Amino acid sequence: MRILIIGAGGVGSAAARIAVRRSFFDALVIADYDAARPAALVAELGDRRLSAAQVDAGSSESVADLIRAHDITHVLNAVDPRFVLPIFDGCFAAGVTYLDMAMSLSARHPERPFELPGVKLGDEQFARADAWERSGLLALVGIGVEPGLSDVFARYAEDELFAEIDELGVRDGANLVVAGYGFAPSFSIWTTIEECLNPPVVYERDRGWYTTEPFSEPEVFDFPEGIGPVECVNVEHEEVLLMPRWTKAKRVTFKYGLGDEFIQVLKVLAKLGLDRTDPVTVGGVEVSPRDVVAACLPDPATLGDKMSGKTCAGVWVTGTGKDGSPRSTYLYHVADNERTMAEYGSQAVVWQTALNPLIALELLAAGTWSGTGVLGPEAFPATPFLDLLSAPAPAGYGSPWGIQER
Amino acid sequence: MRILIIGAGGVGSAAARIAVRRSFFDALVIADYDAARPAALVAELGDRRLSAAQVDAGSSESVADLIRAHDITHVLNAVDPRFVLPIFDGCFAAGVTYLDMAMSLSARHPERPFELPGVKLGDEQFARADAWERSGLLALVGIGVEPGLSDVFARYAEDELFAEIDELGVRDGANLVVAGYGFAPSFSIWTTIEECLNPPVVYERDRGWYTTEPFSEPEVFDFPEGIGPVECVNVEHEEVLLMPRWTKAKRVTFKYGLGDEFIQVLKVLAKLGLDRTDPVTVGGVEVSPRDVVAACLPDPATLGDKMSGKTCAGVWVTGTGKDGSPRSTYLYHVADNERTMAEYGSQAVVWQTALNPLIALELLAAGTWSGTGVLGPEAFPATPFLDLLSAPAPAGYGSPWGIQER
Repeated sequence: MRILIIGAGGVGSAAARIAVRRSFFDALVIADYDAARPAALVAELGDRRLSAAQVDAGSSESVADLIRAHDITHVLNAVDPRFVLPIFDGCFAAGVTYLDMAMSLSARHPERPFELPGVKLGDEQFARADAWERSGLLALVGIGVEPGLSDVFARYAEDELFAEIDELGVRDGANLVVAGYGFAPSFSIWTTIEECLNPPVVYERDRGWYTTEPFSEPEVFDFPEGIGPVECVNVEHEEVLLMPRWTKAKRVTFKYGLGDEFIQVLKVLAKLGLDRTDPVTVGGVEVSPRDVVAACLPDPATLGDKMSGKTCAGVWVTGTGKDGSPRSTYLYHVADNERTMAEYGSQAVVWQTALNPLIALELLAAGTWSGTGVLGPEAFPATPFLDLLSAPAPAGYGSPWGIQER
Repeated sequence: MRILIIGAGGVGSAAARIAVRRSFFDALVIADYDAARPAALVAELGDRRLSAAQVDAGSSESVADLIRAHDITHVLNAVDPRFVLPIFDGCFAAGVTYLDMAMSLSARHPERPFELPGVKLGDEQFARADAWERSGLLALVGIGVEPGLSDVFARYAEDELFAEIDELGVRDGANLVVAGYGFAPSFSIWTTIEECLNPPVVYERDRGWYTTEPFSEPEVFDFPEGIGPVECVNVEHEEVLLMPRWTKAKRVTFKYGLGDEFIQVLKVLAKLGLDRTDPVTVGGVEVSPRDVVAACLPDPATLGDKMSGKTCAGVWVTGTGKDGSPRSTYLYHVADNERTMAEYGSQAVVWQTALNPLIALELLAAGTWSGTGVLGPEAFPATPFLDLLSAPAPAGYGSPWGIQER
């Protein structure tokens, strides 16, 4: 297996730091628009299988050329979701396996944005699924932590724990704090605005996909391992588009534990139009207000050593257990920033995201996972994934997951 | 009297619209950095006493040259407070009377900004008071509505209503709404951020001036004439610096009826650093975040015809009445946007600000008000001002004020 990671930002760098401890691949090229970033990372990691390259992720030709130049077999997209389609198309053109952690972007319904979906997350990728299948190629989409590990949990719940599932409710929450800042998000504010201000999407088997106003159905969810209760609201997220395709759940939701303060911040940004990405003219220059917001905040990838606390990703499954009685179970995975910084030099959120595509690549290398077309993580057997995640190193990744009956 | 108004923005234009109905002056020059703005205003108003000019308000030489070129006797500064000092100095150099509606800016205390004042509002003007007095020149500072009319009310309360004043509490609130906008401030957001995020200043006779955290001492004040209860908080404002110099009040405060929503907005802007005026680099260009916030919002001067509601300025005076018994009285002035738009084509907030310097100029022209040095409105007799404000046109300005015992 010869891997290409596109993007040497927070998640791409964390993936490389995890990869160098594993033996399943022969080569790993890390490419970025700014060639100096992967070059520095490769120099730091000192693994002979690694090399650095330059790429324009907005050009499918640039991506395909790089794949061919390095005899790449598997590409991991680790740039922001604006670049999904050119990378996805470049992989198809070059005939290699594609993996991503966020799917092609949505566009709201032109008339009724808070009732009906317009273009849904991933629609533009699923529209090409037949062509991928006919060519015998695999695109494994949404294989970060959320989407990704959450989808593996959904598969596991359906196969092993439940006879019937009423709801797959993804619940994401954290108690991370950044010392020395009044306000410092632990993940890209650009992406957080995109996720949280887009109309949230909900799935019901009888009704199909529908949307709501932002921040709908607020709920306080009590997260495990000391994180505690956090205010969660509906958010647009890939799981709601993926899980219904491969499970029989009656309802699928994604609620993000933003907390009161973050919800207030996002509401104010929307109210003032500061979430906008189209440029405004200020003193003779043009800028995107959302980019100005990001420029005023510290870069979350650089905050790992000032951060403390834990982040939790998981799925709250309700329905009927295998024994026929009602069941309510939270399957989850927690990353402790102190541990991820000490062991990998990566902050908890990017580390937890980057871990899962590596496990998937290792299962694909072994032939444990295989398939063709555009497939989500729930299209594959869950148990080998969860076993590899939790098994102690060097056999596995040494990061246990949990089950909590509620 | 030959008047120069510097600034043809919202307040300067409203002042010209009010002036053309009065006969006390011989000439009125309206000047702006952009010469097209006063030219259009002069053409529209069609009064032979009016003319337009270009000026650089940041240059005291440019201001003095223009004063001399037009034989000006009185200058009204109607630009934002960053330009107070060059205009103030230009008037001194040219030997004419100066009026403004906002005073020279403050600078926070370098070590204890939320306890002690640093450079206070107006300090740089009062530092030159001796020179003005020795030259027999008058600078009448803070003569808009707040500061301005509020200070006249304070003088009136001390002279006519109270034997002893415990507190002069300026209270400003409105129920203005702008149709078609989720959020649209009725006054310059740049100035509102400046006022509301600077440490509020409070005066106590035993302690002197001191500062607090922003948004301190929240209080719901019930405003008259149908406006109703509004959440008010301490804000840095000129009255707190002016009133103690010419009254014997034991305490002076300024509370602004921002309302919950606006307070939330300002807190979020501060939390994210979007109130900053120093530039950040975004995609290769430099912009001031506060200017970007302003650029995302509609220009309040253009919203008059979409606005409805009333704005109220006043002083809540508590202490001992002339008869020796406890007294609590609110002296106030309300502007109804519907009326100011219909009668003057100006929205309520800028009209209410622009009205008061015209009344002061008319009293100076008549010799009813006179003085030398740097003086606030409370240094002059209040009754003639309030009589001229409320007397029906053509004798007066036909805008009644109110007294409410509470």
